[in-house]
Amino acid sequence: MPAQTMEELVSLCKRRGFIFQGSEIYGGLQGFYDYGPLGVELKNNIKQAWWRTNVYERDDMEGLDASIIMHRMVLRHSGHEATFSDPMVDNRKTKKRYRLDHLVKDQKPAVQQAVAEAMGESLENFAALVAAMVKNPARASEALIAGGVRDAFSGEVGDWTEPKPFNMMFKTTIGPTADEDSYGYLRPETAQGIFTNFKNVVDSTSRRLPFGIAQIGKAFRNEITPRNFIFRVRELEQMEIEFFCAPGTDEDWHEHWLQARLAWWAAQGVPREKIQILDVPKEDLAHYSKRTYDLMYDYPTLGYEEIEGIANRSDYDLGSHTKAQGELGIQARVEENLDSVAKLTIPHPDTNKPVVPFVIEPSAGVDRAMLAVLSEAYTKETLENGSERIVLKLKPHLAPIKVAVIPLARNREEIVSVAKSVKADLQKLGLGRILFEDSGNIGKAYRRHDEVGTPFCVTVDFDTVGKGEDEALVDTVTVRDRDTLAQERVKISDLAAYLTSRLK
Amino acid sequence: MPAQTMEELVSLCKRRGFIFQGSEIYGGLQGFYDYGPLGVELKNNIKQAWWRTNVYERDDMEGLDASIIMHRMVLRHSGHEATFSDPMVDNRKTKKRYRLDHLVKDQKPAVQQAVAEAMGESLENFAALVAAMVKNPARASEALIAGGVRDAFSGEVGDWTEPKPFNMMFKTTIGPTADEDSYGYLRPETAQGIFTNFKNVVDSTSRRLPFGIAQIGKAFRNEITPRNFIFRVRELEQMEIEFFCAPGTDEDWHEHWLQARLAWWAAQGVPREKIQILDVPKEDLAHYSKRTYDLMYDYPTLGYEEIEGIANRSDYDLGSHTKAQGELGIQARVEENLDSVAKLTIPHPDTNKPVVPFVIEPSAGVDRAMLAVLSEAYTKETLENGSERIVLKLKPHLAPIKVAVIPLARNREEIVSVAKSVKADLQKLGLGRILFEDSGNIGKAYRRHDEVGTPFCVTVDFDTVGKGEDEALVDTVTVRDRDTLAQERVKISDLAAYLTSRLK
Repeated sequence: MPAQTMEELVSLCKRRGFIFQGSEIYGGLQGFYDYGPLGVELKNNIKQAWWRTNVYERDDMEGLDASIIMHRMVLRHSGHEATFSDPMVDNRKTKKRYRLDHLVKDQKPAVQQAVAEAMGESLENFAALVAAMVKNPARASEALIAGGVRDAFSGEVGDWTEPKPFNMMFKTTIGPTADEDSYGYLRPETAQGIFTNFKNVVDSTSRRLPFGIAQIGKAFRNEITPRNFIFRVRELEQMEIEFFCAPGTDEDWHEHWLQARLAWWAAQGVPREKIQILDVPKEDLAHYSKRTYDLMYDYPTLGYEEIEGIANRSDYDLGSHTKAQGELGIQARVEENLDSVAKLTIPHPDTNKPVVPFVIEPSAGVDRAMLAVLSEAYTKETLENGSERIVLKLKPHLAPIKVAVIPLARNREEIVSVAKSVKADLQKLGLGRILFEDSGNIGKAYRRHDEVGTPFCVTVDFDTVGKGEDEALVDTVTVRDRDTLAQERVKISDLAAYLTSRLK
Repeated sequence: MPAQTMEELVSLCKRRGFIFQGSEIYGGLQGFYDYGPLGVELKNNIKQAWWRTNVYERDDMEGLDASIIMHRMVLRHSGHEATFSDPMVDNRKTKKRYRLDHLVKDQKPAVQQAVAEAMGESLENFAALVAAMVKNPARASEALIAGGVRDAFSGEVGDWTEPKPFNMMFKTTIGPTADEDSYGYLRPETAQGIFTNFKNVVDSTSRRLPFGIAQIGKAFRNEITPRNFIFRVRELEQMEIEFFCAPGTDEDWHEHWLQARLAWWAAQGVPREKIQILDVPKEDLAHYSKRTYDLMYDYPTLGYEEIEGIANRSDYDLGSHTKAQGELGIQARVEENLDSVAKLTIPHPDTNKPVVPFVIEPSAGVDRAMLAVLSEAYTKETLENGSERIVLKLKPHLAPIKVAVIPLARNREEIVSVAKSVKADLQKLGLGRILFEDSGNIGKAYRRHDEVGTPFCVTVDFDTVGKGEDEALVDTVTVRDRDTLAQERVKISDLAAYLTSRLK
């Protein structure tokens, strides 16, 4: 039984060192989170699982790690300067600013209904309601006020302005000069670094169509109202693939990637039945998208929200960033580009003539993946003795700590030194983090490792070092299984094989 | 024989897909680099080797991954707002701006001499000369003009302003409001995320002194004159440890970390004899530093430059970020802090009384590490037949590709399918990236994999699939060793054991 509420997860994450509020000792910074000792391991394990499946195990993928700060021309020609914005409204009374759709959604049903009616729209189609408000800003302002939309800050009905677009890119000045052109953007998605390096990758690897480029890295979005823990944040991490193929083969590849990505999620413990595939309706698609599948995961408290988008972006991206657009038979509607110095084509596999390839983009968030994985793994169990335990039933390859090695008495030198040497030997197997755990008594240690999902605890006790009652137990340790709670006595010399077979 | 010039490395990196200029198709962005298909693997391998040694193999370390954008109060109380700046001067004629020390260093010896004399300083102690110019800005301006300092942009003697400090932090607006307080900084070092999470980590892990927190991540410095390829960049990646210990034990731990870090560098192929230890003179230390060792590596073309700093930072950092400073017996000179909400102490191991611990900081750059590793691995060899080859003699654990599996004929289905299955089986061993390589003929493939440091090439040929002349060779492949060039015929069924033993 997965997590029932977001609060359970938030509490566990803070208590056990998975996730902390960013800049917390100065009151925190909204939309920024720090990953603690266990969070960094879980995050790295998710990223490595993704890289292994999508780069290592395929024969048609290259990796990339582009810089975060990018030339403003990249984000101009990608379309982000003009369109990467959210509508927001200000309350003239409190000077507070809100994202329009979030503001309306946070109202009581009757207020939402009043706003929809004032706009002549139905609440059923919320996206259409927001679109109508953006299109008729004066009427929207009246609807918010007349509908009685309250400001959460003051608790009173606000004096709302017209909705205005707010660009969500973080901007910063580059270099010591202060002239107008010396700025760049923190990338709002990792994808653009892939498109701008398309030619570099082709030239240095001799790739032919079809092939993809994969990248994991930070992206930044100046969300107006970051919310829902690590679900909607201002600093996020993405795992993105841009898969390049010949026009005409794009629909088949789109289906291929949909299945491949669902299989990956299942292997991380996020089962198929918890994901809904939203075939985004034509009228909601961006103009360059031929078709998009949104994978919607059933998050606790939030309900179904996007965990990954898989888009057929046609030849829009490379078409937008290439020079000599007119000569290339680009199918998407692209803006003129007089700034690019590179022709972004590749030989067509059939004709050998230069073509701007189509691209399929499976784009997942690391933070949202972590939230889903944690949510699925979170289990509250009633044990035989009637007590309750919380256990994270993470897949072993994702567990932050693979094995905890516990000296039963932390002040007994002979026990501690055997435990340390067992830990050091297990660490050499390359299974991931093995922890020498001497922070509390054995009961506390088991509880802690259940809660953080450690698959096995290995305890070194008096018997191990020949100070117990049973001579047959010398050089053996107790291995406790997280899920079954079974405890088995295993020879130290067999431990490597025992754990390797169970953890791989 | 390592690389002789930086140009050799730059050329290899671009040609083979290690490193590209950031935003290159829009003319590039100075000080930003993108890591290509091989660069991302090498970089990840370096980071993983560091994490393994410093987190996994120790019993006194926790990991962390804090956000890049931080609250301005963090960077105020760390001292960066006030002091993280470089002196720069403008040329009134060309409107170009330069970092003072770089400007002087780039002049001909006679000009440098003239500037030094005008300031009444000696060129021998360059740092003192720069300090004197900062202290007497009016005299510095005169010295630059009278000394005949030229502007590289125009080639002419400049009309130089007085040196002024330029803060090197990237600043950005957070959230949709435009009020004065809504900004934060891109962290100029990962360290501050460790200090601000000190209490969170202690509370969630029950760590006692001594212990450390390790972090790998991006940091941003708005360098006035980025230069020397990936050596001095604006977006960099750091691998930093803050090791907390009781006051009085700090000097021993400082020595421990010096030795531990030198051993790590040697294990990455950067030998002890290529590193000079600079025991930074007292007068050059920041006021909070008790002692600092700079590890200076002999970079090609650049000469000895810092590859890692290992500082004893006393109790300055936690002392600066804690509330209630007055009660805590802080030894460093810290500024008053009325903004922090947390008391950053831990029980003293002897007295159990709360103490602000001392900290030892080994701080290395991923990009500089990569440059050093590449430089040491770079080898030009003359072969027996008189031809020359370039080979990257990387340690196997750092090699971007561990094994390349090459079908001798890429249009023969039976050969290709065996090669693909050999690749898939080897990939499962978890050794790192195994490449199915069908981009050219066998000679080209060998040359390419020498240049990118692939330890082994495995070739599937006609004999392998029973279409050759020697029946004894069926189900065997040719394994070529990068360093010895020896070729051995190995049974496919023995391949896993053969390669595992040589790559681990």
